[in-house]
Amino acid sequence: MDFSSFLTSLGTSFVIFVVLMILFGLLSSRPGNNVVYYPNRILKGLDPLEGGYKTRNPFSWIKEAMSSSERDVIAMSGVDTAVYFVFLGTVLSILVLSGVIVLPLLLPLSVTDKGSKGQTTSKGTFNELDKLSMAHITEKSPRLWAFVVACYWVSLVSFFLLWKAYKHVSLLRSEALRSPDVKPQQFAIVVRDIPPVPQGQTRKEQVDSYFKAIYPEAFYRSMIVTDNKQVNKIWEELEGYKKKLARAEAVYEGSKTTAKPEGTRPSNKTGFLGLIGKKVDSIEYYNEKINELVAKLESEQKITLREKQQNAALVFFSSRVVAASAAQSLHAQMVDTWSVFDAPEPRQILWSNLKIKFFQRELRQYLVYFIVALTIFFYMIPITFVSAFTTLDNLVKILPFIKPIVRIKVLRTVLEAYLPQLALIIFLALLPKLLLFLSKFEGIPTESHAVRAASGKYFYFTVLNVFIGVTIGGTLFRAFKTIQKNTSELVPMLASSLPGNATFFLTYVALKFFVGYGLELSRIVPLIIFHLKKKFLCKTEAELKEAWAPGDLGYGTRVPGDMLIVTIVFCYSVIAPLIIPFGALYFGLGWLILRNQALKVYVPSYESNGRMWPHIHNRVLASLILYQITMLGYFGVKKFFYTALLIPLPILSLVFGFVCAKKFYPAFERPALEVAAHALKEVPNMELIFRSFIPPSLSSEKIDDDQFEDALSHVSRTSHV
Amino acid sequence: MDFSSFLTSLGTSFVIFVVLMILFGLLSSRPGNNVVYYPNRILKGLDPLEGGYKTRNPFSWIKEAMSSSERDVIAMSGVDTAVYFVFLGTVLSILVLSGVIVLPLLLPLSVTDKGSKGQTTSKGTFNELDKLSMAHITEKSPRLWAFVVACYWVSLVSFFLLWKAYKHVSLLRSEALRSPDVKPQQFAIVVRDIPPVPQGQTRKEQVDSYFKAIYPEAFYRSMIVTDNKQVNKIWEELEGYKKKLARAEAVYEGSKTTAKPEGTRPSNKTGFLGLIGKKVDSIEYYNEKINELVAKLESEQKITLREKQQNAALVFFSSRVVAASAAQSLHAQMVDTWSVFDAPEPRQILWSNLKIKFFQRELRQYLVYFIVALTIFFYMIPITFVSAFTTLDNLVKILPFIKPIVRIKVLRTVLEAYLPQLALIIFLALLPKLLLFLSKFEGIPTESHAVRAASGKYFYFTVLNVFIGVTIGGTLFRAFKTIQKNTSELVPMLASSLPGNATFFLTYVALKFFVGYGLELSRIVPLIIFHLKKKFLCKTEAELKEAWAPGDLGYGTRVPGDMLIVTIVFCYSVIAPLIIPFGALYFGLGWLILRNQALKVYVPSYESNGRMWPHIHNRVLASLILYQITMLGYFGVKKFFYTALLIPLPILSLVFGFVCAKKFYPAFERPALEVAAHALKEVPNMELIFRSFIPPSLSSEKIDDDQFEDALSHVSRTSHV
Repeated sequence: MDFSSFLTSLGTSFVIFVVLMILFGLLSSRPGNNVVYYPNRILKGLDPLEGGYKTRNPFSWIKEAMSSSERDVIAMSGVDTAVYFVFLGTVLSILVLSGVIVLPLLLPLSVTDKGSKGQTTSKGTFNELDKLSMAHITEKSPRLWAFVVACYWVSLVSFFLLWKAYKHVSLLRSEALRSPDVKPQQFAIVVRDIPPVPQGQTRKEQVDSYFKAIYPEAFYRSMIVTDNKQVNKIWEELEGYKKKLARAEAVYEGSKTTAKPEGTRPSNKTGFLGLIGKKVDSIEYYNEKINELVAKLESEQKITLREKQQNAALVFFSSRVVAASAAQSLHAQMVDTWSVFDAPEPRQILWSNLKIKFFQRELRQYLVYFIVALTIFFYMIPITFVSAFTTLDNLVKILPFIKPIVRIKVLRTVLEAYLPQLALIIFLALLPKLLLFLSKFEGIPTESHAVRAASGKYFYFTVLNVFIGVTIGGTLFRAFKTIQKNTSELVPMLASSLPGNATFFLTYVALKFFVGYGLELSRIVPLIIFHLKKKFLCKTEAELKEAWAPGDLGYGTRVPGDMLIVTIVFCYSVIAPLIIPFGALYFGLGWLILRNQALKVYVPSYESNGRMWPHIHNRVLASLILYQITMLGYFGVKKFFYTALLIPLPILSLVFGFVCAKKFYPAFERPALEVAAHALKEVPNMELIFRSFIPPSLSSEKIDDDQFEDALSHVSRTSHV
Repeated sequence: MDFSSFLTSLGTSFVIFVVLMILFGLLSSRPGNNVVYYPNRILKGLDPLEGGYKTRNPFSWIKEAMSSSERDVIAMSGVDTAVYFVFLGTVLSILVLSGVIVLPLLLPLSVTDKGSKGQTTSKGTFNELDKLSMAHITEKSPRLWAFVVACYWVSLVSFFLLWKAYKHVSLLRSEALRSPDVKPQQFAIVVRDIPPVPQGQTRKEQVDSYFKAIYPEAFYRSMIVTDNKQVNKIWEELEGYKKKLARAEAVYEGSKTTAKPEGTRPSNKTGFLGLIGKKVDSIEYYNEKINELVAKLESEQKITLREKQQNAALVFFSSRVVAASAAQSLHAQMVDTWSVFDAPEPRQILWSNLKIKFFQRELRQYLVYFIVALTIFFYMIPITFVSAFTTLDNLVKILPFIKPIVRIKVLRTVLEAYLPQLALIIFLALLPKLLLFLSKFEGIPTESHAVRAASGKYFYFTVLNVFIGVTIGGTLFRAFKTIQKNTSELVPMLASSLPGNATFFLTYVALKFFVGYGLELSRIVPLIIFHLKKKFLCKTEAELKEAWAPGDLGYGTRVPGDMLIVTIVFCYSVIAPLIIPFGALYFGLGWLILRNQALKVYVPSYESNGRMWPHIHNRVLASLILYQITMLGYFGVKKFFYTALLIPLPILSLVFGFVCAKKFYPAFERPALEVAAHALKEVPNMELIFRSFIPPSLSSEKIDDDQFEDALSHVSRTSHV
């Protein structure tokens, strides 16, 4: 890639960004689009636009985002979102603080050096940027001392700010957990691996007597987990028919025009997709179906509660401290029985995972690790090819028939600028679903944990495949015909191939922030989809609401993407310091735009009180260590005599990580009692707490308290007596 | 070593053993020696000899030991001792079960093979034993299949019996912990890393308010840990003078003979060691000193309680379950404050370690690991030399002037048989004290934990230095002049040098069990010391009691010694199966003799309820893995084509260890609530429980409850207000 294609790439990205910004300014001020641009505020019952329509200008959202406090974010979008902003803010601060010293220190040194002939950042075609990078420094030059200082500076700034961030998040978490509001999950624990029911007892009696013996005063009640597959299916079918009925009624109402006041009763066919079969009156047919299913649901509910009990339960305590203590204490002498966990929010329990047994969970975990490792390994091959082929020169060499296309100058430039990056981005978009599925397969009991686990796997994937894959892959391909022998020296090879890929990553970062965040802010795609649905599909209020439901911030996939940028920017921060402002721009823009989205658009689908932070912290630290090791290798390549001076850095990072893990981590893993011991603002209504954990498919209005209780307590006795 | 010196060694050992047995038979039946041979029974207030004197014969102890049940051992010597017997019994069973298959399978195969010329078990001088070992099998022989089967058999038998043992010990532990007796340590927790006292509060108020908030009902009281160095010193001085006074009074009484009814008042000099200085009347002088010290002690006690409070405390709960739960729950959001542990027995608390702060403990731990690693490394050098030099031939070569001594045939044979083993045993005797000191320096809060930690270090030391050191050391020394190049291939080298050292270890094991256990049973040394003390030193009953105090079984040093034997026997079990009966004899004799000692002699100095077992289990497993890897190497040396068939073995061992750790270990690390929830036979007297933790130097009769309370609660307020 030469200088002009680099500028073209930057320029096009920027133009797209500006266009999207203008679109956002225009579209977001139209009241008809409020449900797309302010759904979070609408769902919270707030006025979509704070200041009213008059005072607004297209840039007022910037002011609003800048002036919003962490409290506002927590109030509108929860602690998890606030923690995500701590991450963005911390990385931004690291980059700004690093850049302030590193840029003025290193750039003049690089430019004024006589220059080494051997290495360039762009294979010789891109001299303007070459001069700004460490590759331009002569081997063994005393100027390398400044680069050593820069390495230390970046690391120390990172340590300092990461420490502050961890402390801050720990505080946020403890504040959320000590809140005087009654949160049902703070009064419950999840019990798994319950041993087989002893003769003559029901499952419920077994659980109750076990916990009553240990917590004679604080034990409130237990809820046995059941296999809800069947009942869920019926319930979903029922809900589907209810929606269809509402829709048919709306259609019927709509057809009552003044010309035809009696309207047309809608009809449908009963066969496959409503295309074949007998034609029936829709409203009657759906009503019939609903009545049928309600009866079916009721009997299935009873069967489920009686006969489909499993080896897991939720246990409720009347005290928050006792529940917190119970969730982390060893209950049974044999650890593969009666294992306990703190209860998550009801909405994020993965019910079907609760029954999986202790050693099966372990086994599944290792199996999944193995599959993920395989995936990472086999994805490496295509990505390596992509990065090697997608320089146009290579493509032309291998596929000569595309030459005519490439001859068109403009097309060539655009292709050259975007092709590799686009290939990469599309590649990465395929994976998260698979990883989330695999993580759930491990037997993880909560949605947030599964997302965290998937995100962790995705991080390994991106760093290993994209960063190391592209960097070494490009080198390998070039080196393939010439050297072919020293493939074993990974660190020096990675280090020496870094500068050659600097421009690739510069454009990658720029593409991500201009186009990615532009699309994010303008919400063009959801807007179009919403308007299409509204026009052609939606007939009822509920359907309309569903059409603009914004979803959540989705930081499970966002974080690994950001992490890749963190890794890239860290690794190039000293080699090609020009990447620092790009990185800062990425995180700065990200902070600003996502702040707007968090406050106005996305609605969190669960709350884990910042449980994500240790995960993020460790990965930032891992990037830092990768950077430090790479630098060690690169100084070696530069034949700098005092390279060993950099050895303390990775060791320091490990010690730092160790201290953080010891000091802060346990409070993220299990609830601290001093936090749980804070006073509540009201006496908890245990009945409500208990009911909040009943899955919707089991909580019918017709089954009242006593029946639920009754059903729960009389089960499985029949099978034993 | 040739065959005759091997037989000499065995023979001498056996003769010594028989002599010691006869001595034991004679000496133990004399009532005057009862306090040496039955101190445990005497201290427990039982009749020293169960059956009375008439029915006894010199071998009745064997019958008694054999017929004693595990309950007897627990009653007489506690759970820790019972667990030690589980260890001995398990290893014995493994060896017997292994031997039953391995010996009849492998020995005929070895003997009938044509024999390989290259390798022998004794450097060619010891053909009789050579023929019984795997070294005698021809390379690539199909007979090696039988050895593969033997490897699997030994491993599977070990897995099976280790699993059974772990389960059994887990049961023993839970039985001990669920006992209806009130044990003070089950109602207390140790709190460390208490943050600085806030302005205007005392330390006690701080601790009390913290725990009262979390445990409003079950919290009973707290005891702040104080710096007792000064008060302990005064108290010990006082106790010393009390003893001296008693002694002086006894001497005075003794001097009142009929000839001289008024007696001679004893006198002593006040200077250094009673040798110089003014001569005074002892009884008056000691009385004076005691009065002086009592006053000093009282004022020091007050000062200690008021001003020497530290950042640690014991917190008492009125419920066993709450204490068990509190001991394992996270209390503070920041983990380096308010860290909790389950309280050990009062007698095994290492008070002075409690104040050490969280990260200092971590730091100290790593520092100690580093020192231990250095020690292991630097001990390696002398031991390598010892094992290389102590074949007499080598000695003669290097020190020609000892030739005349060596020429004497008998001396030569004895020297050759014992020299290396003696050197080794003396070497190993030097270390335990150092390791215990280092372990305590880590900041470990209990005696039993420190002993466990020291024992672990000792295990690494023995295995690394003795086993690998002697084996490879000998090889290295021989290989030094000839090959010198392939020192990097450790496993094949270890494997190929094993057979050459088989006889060394055969005699080592034999020496250990015949002479070691002979001395153990006959208690010759303690007997002589006791009689000497009784005759020349002891004047009072208390002094006499001190003279025969038997001490405890000391399994902190016993276990690593046994472990070394386990490692040796495992590693040679298939290569030179003849070692199996020797190993079985070691553990069989050990079981028998120590059973006698546990029932009648030793008095345990603390009880950790089998906390030692996971430690033992893991090390047996580590020996097994070392054995499996060695075999892998040795089959490689034998150029066996299907060597890879042995690869699953170490993997299986790791999985087995992992499953055990997951299933059983947590209940050893922290108290299981279902166990603690068992009913007590009486309402615990909290006052007594609290008092049992007051160190003797602080519990004076003159300081009554209120004063202690008063002193505890009014401290450090002065310094803040």
